[in-house]
Amino acid sequence: MTASKKKNGNESTQDSSANSMWGGRFSEGPAEVMERINASIGFDKKLYAQDIAGSKAHCRMLMKQKIISKQDGEQILKGLDTILREIEAGDFVFDAKLEDIHMNVEARLSTLIGAAAGRLHTARSRNDQVATDFRLWVRGALDDLDLAVQGLQAALIDQAAANAETIMPGYTHLQVAQPVTLGHHFLAYVEMLGRDRGRLSDARARLNESPLGAAALAGTAFPIDREMTARELGFDRAMANSLDAVSDRDFALEFLAAGSIIAIHLSRLAEELVLWTNQGFAFVELSDSFTTGSSIMPQKKNPDAAELIRGKSGRVIGALNSLLVTMKGLPLAYGKDMQEDKEPVFDAADTLLVSVTAMQGMIADLKARPDKLLAATTAGFITATDLADWLVRELGLPFRQAHHVTGSLVAEAERAGCDLAELPLSKMQAVEPAIHGGVFSVLSVEKAVASRRSYGGTAPDQVRAQVARARERFL
Amino acid sequence: MTASKKKNGNESTQDSSANSMWGGRFSEGPAEVMERINASIGFDKKLYAQDIAGSKAHCRMLMKQKIISKQDGEQILKGLDTILREIEAGDFVFDAKLEDIHMNVEARLSTLIGAAAGRLHTARSRNDQVATDFRLWVRGALDDLDLAVQGLQAALIDQAAANAETIMPGYTHLQVAQPVTLGHHFLAYVEMLGRDRGRLSDARARLNESPLGAAALAGTAFPIDREMTARELGFDRAMANSLDAVSDRDFALEFLAAGSIIAIHLSRLAEELVLWTNQGFAFVELSDSFTTGSSIMPQKKNPDAAELIRGKSGRVIGALNSLLVTMKGLPLAYGKDMQEDKEPVFDAADTLLVSVTAMQGMIADLKARPDKLLAATTAGFITATDLADWLVRELGLPFRQAHHVTGSLVAEAERAGCDLAELPLSKMQAVEPAIHGGVFSVLSVEKAVASRRSYGGTAPDQVRAQVARARERFL
Amino acid sequence: MTASKKKNGNESTQDSSANSMWGGRFSEGPAEVMERINASIGFDKKLYAQDIAGSKAHCRMLMKQKIISKQDGEQILKGLDTILREIEAGDFVFDAKLEDIHMNVEARLSTLIGAAAGRLHTARSRNDQVATDFRLWVRGALDDLDLAVQGLQAALIDQAAANAETIMPGYTHLQVAQPVTLGHHFLAYVEMLGRDRGRLSDARARLNESPLGAAALAGTAFPIDREMTARELGFDRAMANSLDAVSDRDFALEFLAAGSIIAIHLSRLAEELVLWTNQGFAFVELSDSFTTGSSIMPQKKNPDAAELIRGKSGRVIGALNSLLVTMKGLPLAYGKDMQEDKEPVFDAADTLLVSVTAMQGMIADLKARPDKLLAATTAGFITATDLADWLVRELGLPFRQAHHVTGSLVAEAERAGCDLAELPLSKMQAVEPAIHGGVFSVLSVEKAVASRRSYGGTAPDQVRAQVARARERFL
Amino acid sequence: MTASKKKNGNESTQDSSANSMWGGRFSEGPAEVMERINASIGFDKKLYAQDIAGSKAHCRMLMKQKIISKQDGEQILKGLDTILREIEAGDFVFDAKLEDIHMNVEARLSTLIGAAAGRLHTARSRNDQVATDFRLWVRGALDDLDLAVQGLQAALIDQAAANAETIMPGYTHLQVAQPVTLGHHFLAYVEMLGRDRGRLSDARARLNESPLGAAALAGTAFPIDREMTARELGFDRAMANSLDAVSDRDFALEFLAAGSIIAIHLSRLAEELVLWTNQGFAFVELSDSFTTGSSIMPQKKNPDAAELIRGKSGRVIGALNSLLVTMKGLPLAYGKDMQEDKEPVFDAADTLLVSVTAMQGMIADLKARPDKLLAATTAGFITATDLADWLVRELGLPFRQAHHVTGSLVAEAERAGCDLAELPLSKMQAVEPAIHGGVFSVLSVEKAVASRRSYGGTAPDQVRAQVARARERFL
Repeated sequence: MTASKKKNGNESTQDSSANSMWGGRFSEGPAEVMERINASIGFDKKLYAQDIAGSKAHCRMLMKQKIISKQDGEQILKGLDTILREIEAGDFVFDAKLEDIHMNVEARLSTLIGAAAGRLHTARSRNDQVATDFRLWVRGALDDLDLAVQGLQAALIDQAAANAETIMPGYTHLQVAQPVTLGHHFLAYVEMLGRDRGRLSDARARLNESPLGAAALAGTAFPIDREMTARELGFDRAMANSLDAVSDRDFALEFLAAGSIIAIHLSRLAEELVLWTNQGFAFVELSDSFTTGSSIMPQKKNPDAAELIRGKSGRVIGALNSLLVTMKGLPLAYGKDMQEDKEPVFDAADTLLVSVTAMQGMIADLKARPDKLLAATTAGFITATDLADWLVRELGLPFRQAHHVTGSLVAEAERAGCDLAELPLSKMQAVEPAIHGGVFSVLSVEKAVASRRSYGGTAPDQVRAQVARARERFL
Repeated sequence: MTASKKKNGNESTQDSSANSMWGGRFSEGPAEVMERINASIGFDKKLYAQDIAGSKAHCRMLMKQKIISKQDGEQILKGLDTILREIEAGDFVFDAKLEDIHMNVEARLSTLIGAAAGRLHTARSRNDQVATDFRLWVRGALDDLDLAVQGLQAALIDQAAANAETIMPGYTHLQVAQPVTLGHHFLAYVEMLGRDRGRLSDARARLNESPLGAAALAGTAFPIDREMTARELGFDRAMANSLDAVSDRDFALEFLAAGSIIAIHLSRLAEELVLWTNQGFAFVELSDSFTTGSSIMPQKKNPDAAELIRGKSGRVIGALNSLLVTMKGLPLAYGKDMQEDKEPVFDAADTLLVSVTAMQGMIADLKARPDKLLAATTAGFITATDLADWLVRELGLPFRQAHHVTGSLVAEAERAGCDLAELPLSKMQAVEPAIHGGVFSVLSVEKAVASRRSYGGTAPDQVRAQVARARERFL
Repeated sequence: MTASKKKNGNESTQDSSANSMWGGRFSEGPAEVMERINASIGFDKKLYAQDIAGSKAHCRMLMKQKIISKQDGEQILKGLDTILREIEAGDFVFDAKLEDIHMNVEARLSTLIGAAAGRLHTARSRNDQVATDFRLWVRGALDDLDLAVQGLQAALIDQAAANAETIMPGYTHLQVAQPVTLGHHFLAYVEMLGRDRGRLSDARARLNESPLGAAALAGTAFPIDREMTARELGFDRAMANSLDAVSDRDFALEFLAAGSIIAIHLSRLAEELVLWTNQGFAFVELSDSFTTGSSIMPQKKNPDAAELIRGKSGRVIGALNSLLVTMKGLPLAYGKDMQEDKEPVFDAADTLLVSVTAMQGMIADLKARPDKLLAATTAGFITATDLADWLVRELGLPFRQAHHVTGSLVAEAERAGCDLAELPLSKMQAVEPAIHGGVFSVLSVEKAVASRRSYGGTAPDQVRAQVARARERFL
Repeated sequence: MTASKKKNGNESTQDSSANSMWGGRFSEGPAEVMERINASIGFDKKLYAQDIAGSKAHCRMLMKQKIISKQDGEQILKGLDTILREIEAGDFVFDAKLEDIHMNVEARLSTLIGAAAGRLHTARSRNDQVATDFRLWVRGALDDLDLAVQGLQAALIDQAAANAETIMPGYTHLQVAQPVTLGHHFLAYVEMLGRDRGRLSDARARLNESPLGAAALAGTAFPIDREMTARELGFDRAMANSLDAVSDRDFALEFLAAGSIIAIHLSRLAEELVLWTNQGFAFVELSDSFTTGSSIMPQKKNPDAAELIRGKSGRVIGALNSLLVTMKGLPLAYGKDMQEDKEPVFDAADTLLVSVTAMQGMIADLKARPDKLLAATTAGFITATDLADWLVRELGLPFRQAHHVTGSLVAEAERAGCDLAELPLSKMQAVEPAIHGGVFSVLSVEKAVASRRSYGGTAPDQVRAQVARARERFL
């Protein structure tokens, strides 16, 4: 690329921040580039509450173990509380020169209480400190997400209860297949989300071990009590191996993996909302809150929230992939590469929480249109399976032969331009003489739906039973 | 691209199979292309045992519920056993025209027993059938992988026990940091693999529900007993929602996610084996079995197996990513896209099993070189942390001040071209007068290692305790 | 997992191949595990034609440079031709003990011609040999794929020509937005595929350099002529750096990246085919060749090929991701990890070729249903934008004000339960007095479509012009 | 998870921002959730310069085509310039209620100039506007990145020139293989980066078409001149199809794909820097600017920048993956999912620029340690290949036989505990009588290196020639 070409093409349109960065390559010198790539305070300040909680637990343990004096310890604890208040009040100035949240807090502590601050870092290192902070943060994120997913389940269960008898076409291959109820459909998502919550809960249990006291990598010669700090921070136990404690980022990967499956579930439901609000379906109406109008067509309600949720699945999956790539092939113990663990997790946690919350709002506000849902079941000879099953059950035909007969009858109805229920008995008997009038009892969608009483099936009474069980299992 | 360019470039070097495929675009007609893209028998025949087991359970249930007669049922069961034997003996001819394993088995059953075969498919569909088969297969794969990972843990624990006192440099940033023991290092991987097994076990528990009886998507009007088939197939219960039962592929995603984290762990250990066999480290010797010689340098032992294991992490992560993409945005219920679920899972399962197994072999055969490991600890003032901790513990200095003093002493030693332990007391006292001869008790790597007795630390007695606990927890 | 649990759950359903593999962990010994993880002949035999072509070029060069004798060279060339014929006739026995295609060919050559075979490997190594073979293969795959994509463009252009005046709703957010023509819609994909072919062509040009003669990594002391072998194999030049020549897999990554974007395009078109064949749209009919019937509903045409193509996007993206992960962090020069480069590329090439080919077949066979397409434009006040534009153009209103007026008119029509074109002039004038009868000239979808004559727009004459240009640019 | 458990575990450690978000689920109501998920101004304000440039070009075209009056047009242009100045001065208040950069600018324009502002949006929509803005931004990012990569090439070429004779071990499988020069090694990366720049340049050419004038999706009835706006904005031409123009995000995918390959290259070089600064290698010294000290070991220089660059490959690959997932399966034309295109691109662009820039700094500052590099070549019988080649060249042995003889000699040297060059001639002749004293001329690493004069080989004169060619091709 010649310089002049660049000039012509970009002078006016150039992103100025990129420009200044680039200019920086020459003007700012290595120190600035290094600060930009190295400092993590821009994102790890999110960990302030966890960092301070971890330091307080560590401090109390050092006091109890007489590694530091009671007096020093109390000063430290008081100083840390002051810092927490300062940060929450927005009065704390973060400094990129101090690299990260740990050094920012410690430097401020030193200003506040003087030399005693220097005793806090006894028997620990930033390696176990950050591992502790980040685990606490992810644990909180798991809890928040679990609660949000539960909220979405609640909204779905309510809709399922309200629509236990609302008949709609069930699709396979997005082709009309068999009639189901809308309530039954919503409950499928309740099940998916139930498994999601199981994954979050398993991840939480596995995460909930304390790395604190692993020090840089090898443990320490100070007579620390790792179980005490673990307990104080709500961990179930201290991690068993100090090298592992500072090198492990499984908990972040597992969070992202569980989150990716949630994102997939949300993308499927979002796809259905986009389809169902399309004019060719018109199955549901979304509330104004979760749609946007066009600047020109006031009747238009674009399902933006649903599309964004669907699109954001890429973001969560990308975050998982990002951290998997980062961790690949890293030798023990801590490597700086691992500093890249936080941003994908933070972004995925925010993305999932806003997606689940918006989906909950959409589902809660959603209005089904029973007339449109029912009308769509008239296409596609939707009760053909019921006819075949009737032939098996009532006439004793082997299923494969029943298929064949049904096929002929559908072809007959197609020629006649009518639905199966409208085909005269005589025409049916021309195909299979044993058919009698009882057949009509299964050819309406209402009867078809009502008949599917197998456990987990779509019959309204089954759906109501599923609703009751779901409330008990999940809410 | 001009035709002539293509000719020149590729005439002789063209991959002939690609050619024939391409030629096919014109000659073979749509039917062949469709068969090639649509038929799954090429890979889903792997499910034959699960398919037959599922059919047998379904048949017994149909008999018990009197949906089919005892006589028909017994014929079907006998026929299915015959087919199982035929397949295992290699006598079964799979036919792509019959698309998949289900139709191949059913067609053969029909040949063997006639019309009764047509009764087997009562009250089920291929949608719940394939979901059942695939769950059973993944369950088996989870069990196999768990056992293999346990085997690798056993090999690592044995090496850890043998090397509880073998001193080596611990690294952070791949820079010499603090001395650790090789046993301690191996145990870090035992912990990682322990979490991996926890994930496999959680995935198994979550997977272990039966989709059978969901039929096409909506359940069935036949009076089936889903709990009976669930029990017969070793499932804990029947799935609660029939739409979910045929649409869900979480179990495959969760298998791939857990497998991806395993692959990451293997890639880290593999990286270390590659480093440790490099001439600059020479920490360990791999056996001939897991290395390859060069065609020219007979002394050369390339760590091929380690490199392949490291490289294959891409394959497992790629499989996870593949299925996440495939599932994104699919409306309920079954869509043909889901047929793409099997190959990534099959490939990842094979890859993981061969990788874990080869890693187990390498670790079991590995010979540590204690002389080289110890020699590498002389670089980098590896006991500087011990010195700083001693200043805190013995002289009562705040840690940050102890850092500062240690920094000066290291600089002094660097100037003198000696290690810290070789620095005369007088030189130390010139920096900090309170230092006394007791300091030398912490400056040897042996003493440094022995002193880190905190829970999970690197001291040999801690490592031996970790070994004992690991045996109890994992083997 | 307890052993008994495993027994119950899996005895009958266990995948036997996994079983045998697992059993193997104990019985087969390290050698077999190593062969299974290490040997590449199972997949790299696909490179036979490229391997032999490369060897022949190398041999001729060695002869010309008098590095080997004319006599030896001619024996070698003859032997290689024999081997090529044997492989193509299916008479060649590949042996996993010989690891890869290179050693299989060389061993056979040795059997055929004796000691002279040993001279072929002068001044090369397997490292540059495999790099050469694989480049040639990928080059062929690029050419095949380009031709297939061109074929798909041709099918789309034909449909566009046939449907230059077929009116349908254009969607944004899958909501009816403005009327377009089906031909215009198809041409959007022709553009996407045109960029795809540009990427394939750029990748081909960048790939087309010869690694041959780089030897193991450092070049060679033999007086070889790298330009000669490059020319013989259709390469544009010899690669400039021997370390790069054996370490580079960019060409594979770039193939997979270009292929992933193709897969995305195909997934979008496939999604539309799935939508358009849904009963709520019914816009097109796919031919029997690319749909499958249900076993029970003979009228049903499941769009399996479209779903599979959509699903297979995961597979191609997974392959790209797989190789990116594998290559991450590898030091120079050749590492065995790179052996993992071939299978994702082979699989993605096959997947793309079958997907593009099946898509071409579907598009070529597709029958549009103009009645259904037109009927769908009556929803959603689809000409509202035309009304607003008319207010700007004819009455001189600022666009934002025109929006506002249009909004009121749409609301009026909504209340009246009629389309905009059916709203009486008086009602319009009540909102905006300056409106006159000329407005009706833009309110029909036919006129709306015909008016969008801007370059690249949807007016039939524009579409026909686009068709003509597309034929010239792409076919 | 019980509520009480949550309380205990997280009260003090909870991330407050997550808290407030979460609390929001109940308190803030749907509107706030929707604003949070829907508004893009938080990130798309980065496009302000491009947005204003695009609007100015559009305005000038509307004036020229007499679609708006000269007077209105001039007011608009002046207003836009004012807004640009306000934004660059930091005086502009962005408002999330106005959703995006386009509406923020237009609303401000309206305030500044009144009703005429409403004429700017004539004959365009946000769909073509954002496509235009984003293309311009990516074009600028491509140019910036190209320049940065060129800078890195320059640093590498300078190091290569300075180290054309610096001998080091060349590795395969990270095992000592053959001696090479450090200059040769650096030039391998120059080649990789050269291909990277080729990809950036190809992407730029393909991107450089104007979507402006596509309007919402279908083009417009206004007599616009798309070529004029294209020219004004430095585009090569107007895009050929309006549906494609608003639906296409290939340019973003291609940017991310090219960027991912760059990230892979950087990760490989970073890995080598991490290895080379490890105490077992000690091949190079990084400057203080790009390393960090430990808080305790002042001699320690952790290669943080290299590790971060290696780790950040995950981030770029994650961004690519993210957008591929987002685009998968989207029907035409614009969908809101596509709003998810910007953040991954912005993040990857920043990441790549800072990574390349930091790498350039590290390479420019790097000091090779020739003594250590040379010393490392004494391991591993590094000239064995030279010996074998000599046997072929001088004694006429077939290569495979020469291998065999060399193998025996290496074994002999291994037994004698000496290098090949130290093996007495008599011992050599005992293995192969024809060997004569001339053999010693190839057994030193200096001679071995000097002999590899094949094109692209490692001989210093070849390396110098490569340097000269590289300067010409790339700088």
